[in-house]
Amino acid sequence: MIHPKIPNAQTVIQLCKAKKIKHIIISPGSRSAPLTIGFTNDPYFKCYSIVDERCAAFFALGIAQQLQYPAALVCTSGSALLNYYPAIAEAFYSDIPLIVLSADRPKHLIGIGDGQTINQNDVFANHILYSTSLKLDIKDEKNIPENEDFPIFKNLEDRLERFLGFQKDIQTFNEEEINIAINQAVARKGPVHINIPFDEPLYERDTKLSVTPKVSDISIKPKPLDNYIIQECFDTWNASAKKMVLVGVNQPNEIGKKWLNELSKDDSVIVLTETTSNLHHDSFFPNIDQLVGPLSVDEQKALQPDVLVTFGGLIISKKIKSFLRKYQPKAHWHIDEKNALDTFFCLSNHIKTTPHQFLEGLLTRITHHVKSDYHTMWEQVKQQRLEKHELYLKQVPFSDFKVFEILLQAIPNHYILQVGNSSAIRYTQLFQLNRTLDVYCNRGTSGIDGSTSTAIGCAVAATKPTVLLTGDLSFLYDSNGLWNNYIPKNFRIIVVNNGGGGIFRILPGHKNTENFDLFFETKHNLTAKHLCKMYGLEYSSADTELQLKSKMKSFYMESEAPKLLEIFTPSIVNDEQLLNYFDFIS
Amino acid sequence: MIHPKIPNAQTVIQLCKAKKIKHIIISPGSRSAPLTIGFTNDPYFKCYSIVDERCAAFFALGIAQQLQYPAALVCTSGSALLNYYPAIAEAFYSDIPLIVLSADRPKHLIGIGDGQTINQNDVFANHILYSTSLKLDIKDEKNIPENEDFPIFKNLEDRLERFLGFQKDIQTFNEEEINIAINQAVARKGPVHINIPFDEPLYERDTKLSVTPKVSDISIKPKPLDNYIIQECFDTWNASAKKMVLVGVNQPNEIGKKWLNELSKDDSVIVLTETTSNLHHDSFFPNIDQLVGPLSVDEQKALQPDVLVTFGGLIISKKIKSFLRKYQPKAHWHIDEKNALDTFFCLSNHIKTTPHQFLEGLLTRITHHVKSDYHTMWEQVKQQRLEKHELYLKQVPFSDFKVFEILLQAIPNHYILQVGNSSAIRYTQLFQLNRTLDVYCNRGTSGIDGSTSTAIGCAVAATKPTVLLTGDLSFLYDSNGLWNNYIPKNFRIIVVNNGGGGIFRILPGHKNTENFDLFFETKHNLTAKHLCKMYGLEYSSADTELQLKSKMKSFYMESEAPKLLEIFTPSIVNDEQLLNYFDFIS
Repeated sequence: MIHPKIPNAQTVIQLCKAKKIKHIIISPGSRSAPLTIGFTNDPYFKCYSIVDERCAAFFALGIAQQLQYPAALVCTSGSALLNYYPAIAEAFYSDIPLIVLSADRPKHLIGIGDGQTINQNDVFANHILYSTSLKLDIKDEKNIPENEDFPIFKNLEDRLERFLGFQKDIQTFNEEEINIAINQAVARKGPVHINIPFDEPLYERDTKLSVTPKVSDISIKPKPLDNYIIQECFDTWNASAKKMVLVGVNQPNEIGKKWLNELSKDDSVIVLTETTSNLHHDSFFPNIDQLVGPLSVDEQKALQPDVLVTFGGLIISKKIKSFLRKYQPKAHWHIDEKNALDTFFCLSNHIKTTPHQFLEGLLTRITHHVKSDYHTMWEQVKQQRLEKHELYLKQVPFSDFKVFEILLQAIPNHYILQVGNSSAIRYTQLFQLNRTLDVYCNRGTSGIDGSTSTAIGCAVAATKPTVLLTGDLSFLYDSNGLWNNYIPKNFRIIVVNNGGGGIFRILPGHKNTENFDLFFETKHNLTAKHLCKMYGLEYSSADTELQLKSKMKSFYMESEAPKLLEIFTPSIVNDEQLLNYFDFIS
Repeated sequence: MIHPKIPNAQTVIQLCKAKKIKHIIISPGSRSAPLTIGFTNDPYFKCYSIVDERCAAFFALGIAQQLQYPAALVCTSGSALLNYYPAIAEAFYSDIPLIVLSADRPKHLIGIGDGQTINQNDVFANHILYSTSLKLDIKDEKNIPENEDFPIFKNLEDRLERFLGFQKDIQTFNEEEINIAINQAVARKGPVHINIPFDEPLYERDTKLSVTPKVSDISIKPKPLDNYIIQECFDTWNASAKKMVLVGVNQPNEIGKKWLNELSKDDSVIVLTETTSNLHHDSFFPNIDQLVGPLSVDEQKALQPDVLVTFGGLIISKKIKSFLRKYQPKAHWHIDEKNALDTFFCLSNHIKTTPHQFLEGLLTRITHHVKSDYHTMWEQVKQQRLEKHELYLKQVPFSDFKVFEILLQAIPNHYILQVGNSSAIRYTQLFQLNRTLDVYCNRGTSGIDGSTSTAIGCAVAATKPTVLLTGDLSFLYDSNGLWNNYIPKNFRIIVVNNGGGGIFRILPGHKNTENFDLFFETKHNLTAKHLCKMYGLEYSSADTELQLKSKMKSFYMESEAPKLLEIFTPSIVNDEQLLNYFDFIS
């Protein structure tokens, strides 16, 4: 097999292999040649070539999101690395493991005005689990860079011996750092950065490995939950007649059906699920805004829980956030192995375990349910809302709202639905989704900057077909997301094009002024058509309900190329329909 | 006039105005609404709306590069800010002033899982002149956020008085920070970051200002050069028979003609100018690679200078760098008010003044020239090379090399030439340019990530027409650069499309393997045609010498829309032609 000659490159690659990091997303570059040569010549790795590093990183994010295991990114020195940052931040807040392998110049060539050279050390400091810069390895004692990581020893008699000692120290240091970084990414689920200086020559190869790096185990045994913690929770739980469970971002099938059923039987419990929760039960409340949006003060008081239990976090619904900040529960427990964010300013307990373990621990103890009409009452409200929701949709004209109804109904079973920020995910939250769908949205930073790339990465790694549902601004922003050779034929994109940032019409700005159109809504007349032509996607469009329904019939059928459907909606009607909705259903 | 109601927004805007920051590049967002409202409602400011923050920042860079004065960037909270990073790093290394104004949430809403929220504090730490986070201003004493920047004083009797005191302290702190940041950007020429937390309501307006911020002066008086420094230089200069002046990035007309003429008369001096130096004289050496590339060891020894004087830096020519690192001068003086980089590992003196001042100080002292044949000898070599260069070009087939010859000759007088990285600028360095052109290239980080946006920003701010000369990868990378309404009709883009990263063919990789094509050259069959259609540019293409020459006749003529010319060159021929060139001219 062909290996890069440089030992550090070999070490990185061998450790990735030993730790089963299989998906490697490579952007072109010369400084990174030793890594590129190594990864692409070993059939163990599945390598992808993506030029725009911003897209490459979101593509990797999409893969890692599906695998729940790290993908690795390889880039050259310089600003290439900085283009990863939006996806790194998303991974940081969304707990998605990513390994950044950035090639760098040796220290003595940094900060002296050489090309493609920046200060790469810990450049993602605010948003990274672990970052390290390896030490340059030195090939032979003749070639010791004196201003590198060790002192001058030109005049020592034991030059060679000392040199070999240094070389070993460097190798040990580097191996340890790589082990720590990768293990952190896997165990703590998030981005890590390994910066790797390489000296020329960069393109030399070898058929033998010169290193046998030590592989340290990744410890990801979940800690057993202390009995007294569960007991405490149980006592409070058992004494409370109003318990709200609020589920944010959650991987499909993370929580056993049995415990969801148990929750559903308890009349003192209501379970509010966001679209990204991937949790479903007839008795749950999947349309939070619909429920919480139109409440009177009395109803709000009635909804105020005694106990709030949250999983996942990254809550999309602004209405539930502002409700819970105002009507705070007596206790808020967040269940998460890693972090607990005080989203509602009343966090009382971070329970460091998985939601599944927590529910198992808690619910097995329960012998009888607290008497309560909490669930019954809100179930009635939910049913009333659903009826009005149906009524409203029957009379709503062609608009974003109507379009999302049709689109969401038409997605075939067992698809992965990737949703863009920010109108797209907010509209999606208003509908009862097909329960066979897995739903994802980049809610870590809620950016519009990488939805297409993420969805394509997901489509590449997933066993199910993927459809991306996005707005025009988000789609145009990540237009380079289409610039790669990996888009599966069954990948589908739906762009709801309302000619600008429709979300701003819903916000309290001064609408319909030139200033608003230009700087908030950022109106445009662009279409996805030309990009489809450029990148070989089948394009079609619709701008009436009839057209849309007709297109939906064939949109998911097998095709020779991935497809994009663009739906043009009238921007001025859209926001009115949405605002009227909340009046109507109240 | 309409102002945002929030005092901090008013303060930022009034200080920008007082300091003559006129060009404001705004990306859409809600958190930044107070800034957007303020800037766009004051006719003093020239505001631009650009959605993709990566492009917005490079666009601002292009403006600031032309004005040599800061442009300001406005973005919302979250990953928006991170997309600025590639341009921030470019500005940092290229000494281009930029002011980043990022809206942020109040502290108590950060790190709690709210949407579009990251840790924005000092996020560009490695590449910023100054960064600060303002303190949230508090509108009334009822609304004091207790977990903000000051302690709880709920129970104090003097609550209101204390509150007013705090409010004043906050206002003073913020004013000072904004003053420092903007002054640093102007005086030290580089990027600064002001992070501004805003609390809701964000869209409220007022017809009166509630602040009158103190404006502190920007001190940019150039320090007078100490006489003894110049005297020391003069002594060495006068004793040296081989003096090399090497000029990197340099603004047009920075250095008085008189001193260039003086330099040209001295036979002990050779002046090597890079394409980005914007310096011209018959006696100078504008094609460094041509001169230095094919030298024998004896010739290299003969070229080794006693004294090396450098201005500008960010040297493109790898050949001169490796030459000077090997054949080091006895003294290397770098002339720059701000930094001196030790590019050749022999820097002996950083002279903190402008090149013009230095030359004036030095050359006025000179009464006679040292006897030397240094210039004469190399002038002869230059002439020989030029003859061979012409000969070579006569027989070279249609290829990148030939194309650059034709393109560079055809640019009309008094254009601004923006060149992309990396092949494009390297080819351009091989030709004698039309001396009426101003030449720019993003050599701070030498990235391919923002050339189009930079060129368009330049075109917007400049009084001369602008042409961008770029490769296909760089053009495709920054395709969103075309997504704005500001491209002047006389703006021109030339894409030399060799179907991938042609630069990698010149590097020592293993060419013509599937692996090389995919991961190094990143071959593609894409064209700029569809993007032109999408964004309303006039498109034409050429793939023969005859076609190209014919297109050149009308390309710069007035037009109703900006134009793009795409030239398809044969990737396999290109690298051979370039490599043969250096053999041929030696």
